[in-house]
Amino acid sequence: MRKLVVGVDLGGTKILTGIADTNGTILGKKRVPTPAGADPDQVLDVMIDCATELLRVCLVQEEEIQGIAVATPGPLSFPEGVVRNSPNLSWERVLLKEELIRRTGRPVIVEKDTNMAVLGEYYFGRQRGCGDLLYMTVSTGIGGGIICAGKVYRGHLGGAGEVGHMVVELGGEACNCGRRGCLEAMASGSAIARRLDRMIKKGQGQGILNCTTPGEHPGPRELGIAFRQGDEEARLLLSQVAQYLGIGIANLVNIFNPRAIILGGGMMLGLKDLLLEPVRTYVYEHVFSLNREDLVVECTSLGDDIVLYGCVAAVLSNKNG
Amino acid sequence: MRKLVVGVDLGGTKILTGIADTNGTILGKKRVPTPAGADPDQVLDVMIDCATELLRVCLVQEEEIQGIAVATPGPLSFPEGVVRNSPNLSWERVLLKEELIRRTGRPVIVEKDTNMAVLGEYYFGRQRGCGDLLYMTVSTGIGGGIICAGKVYRGHLGGAGEVGHMVVELGGEACNCGRRGCLEAMASGSAIARRLDRMIKKGQGQGILNCTTPGEHPGPRELGIAFRQGDEEARLLLSQVAQYLGIGIANLVNIFNPRAIILGGGMMLGLKDLLLEPVRTYVYEHVFSLNREDLVVECTSLGDDIVLYGCVAAVLSNKNG
Repeated sequence: MRKLVVGVDLGGTKILTGIADTNGTILGKKRVPTPAGADPDQVLDVMIDCATELLRVCLVQEEEIQGIAVATPGPLSFPEGVVRNSPNLSWERVLLKEELIRRTGRPVIVEKDTNMAVLGEYYFGRQRGCGDLLYMTVSTGIGGGIICAGKVYRGHLGGAGEVGHMVVELGGEACNCGRRGCLEAMASGSAIARRLDRMIKKGQGQGILNCTTPGEHPGPRELGIAFRQGDEEARLLLSQVAQYLGIGIANLVNIFNPRAIILGGGMMLGLKDLLLEPVRTYVYEHVFSLNREDLVVECTSLGDDIVLYGCVAAVLSNKNG
Repeated sequence: MRKLVVGVDLGGTKILTGIADTNGTILGKKRVPTPAGADPDQVLDVMIDCATELLRVCLVQEEEIQGIAVATPGPLSFPEGVVRNSPNLSWERVLLKEELIRRTGRPVIVEKDTNMAVLGEYYFGRQRGCGDLLYMTVSTGIGGGIICAGKVYRGHLGGAGEVGHMVVELGGEACNCGRRGCLEAMASGSAIARRLDRMIKKGQGQGILNCTTPGEHPGPRELGIAFRQGDEEARLLLSQVAQYLGIGIANLVNIFNPRAIILGGGMMLGLKDLLLEPVRTYVYEHVFSLNREDLVVECTSLGDDIVLYGCVAAVLSNKNG
């Protein structure tokens, strides 16, 4: 009998469900939008419907499923699997793990999405087996997953890894977390969108606006298109973003001395050709020489599926203790 | 037979040698200045002379010494005990552990001073046994020690913990590390001294100058005296320093979700009455609510001896595996 895992990457905008074997081969996956308002019961219904459909389509027997792993936005209590005042889901306190076990009767792991991602990289990425590993996602928000000495590091109550909430610009843009100048407020996809909106209101950024579908708001994607077409404002803005990311990553390299720092997330992967080199150069030039030795700074090879791979890894690592 | 440890806290300006038992009782200690130029052979001579004298004065037999533990400024390769291009000692590459074993014939542990300090807190401080623990020293420089899940975290090559080299002010003061605006460049004892020198050259800071011995340069101590006498410039400068420290610590709390962050170092302990409360308030107000739960931010109860306690702890933890 095959040993399979159902993985769910639950986000504020999409729910990506997949079935994979324990070698990390994804047999099938299905992506649906998160129900408006993200009512917990509805979200659970959608997850179970997607999984049921995948079981059918991929000709999987229920007994083959070794475990279910769900990745959620933080904050999350681990291992209890309680999603707590999550801004991305607008949830207050949802006993996700308990409820999923009740509904499915299967072993369930619920883990923060960034922790799943770093586990995915650790088991299935180019840096597999690298015991001192950081993962940073740069997307709508910025978050991180930490592997210290071969184990996911969650901190005292599961809140570790909030690397998007380092201040990189004193008194900078207001952040959702209540501070100002956090990396997330200065260099995430939503930070770029806000910045472009303001520029356009002032009559700037015409080159970027020209790359935008009429009636829509420009974001990182349109910024990238304008840059590739030689737009000067786009170049300037992207070089600032690269600098903020470089500062944040260099801070982390000095604090953790990781062997590798792996970047992922929609914005980072979409702008990889424009962002990775300047970020990497900044980091190598701004960290202690000891911390630079052997250091790898690269984008994940697992793409958008990194969290699904992490779900498989979570079930595997749980079995291994 | 008693089980005793020789500990050495080797710094750029002083060498503090102590003998302690494995309960953390310090039987005797001796503090001497680091030889000018800190020639490695001379430093080794001084360390061994001090230890020999302490053995004699404290009536200790050589056989009672279970191990020797030396704390050095970073960067340091662990467990090889090679001090590498250390700015504080002006050493290029010194095989300290190997040389000490050769000279003494005893088991030797060489560890970065901040790692020793966090071990000292973990074994003998008020936060003993706290598995998610950060230590930050605020002194001439700013550094850190990390305990993740009950173990000192050193990173890939022993370079972890350089928390003084987070940028907290983009484009701020030049730092010894080559960056600008690092926490150490903005809020350490030497940063304050540089800032006061500049103020005084411009004819400012008269209240602080009045608290300074004629012919000497004011530093954190004089700043504290002036503050306590109601000097407005001193109040302003200290509130900026507290803010920078607060930003750096809040960053760390969001990244690590520690149970406790313990502060030490000459400047922090000397200005505890003026700095701790504003720093603590800043941190509690600027971190995620999950990461604030149970969070302790306090000064070490081990004072200047924290590194010596750490030396004992290092020998103990080495024996325990």
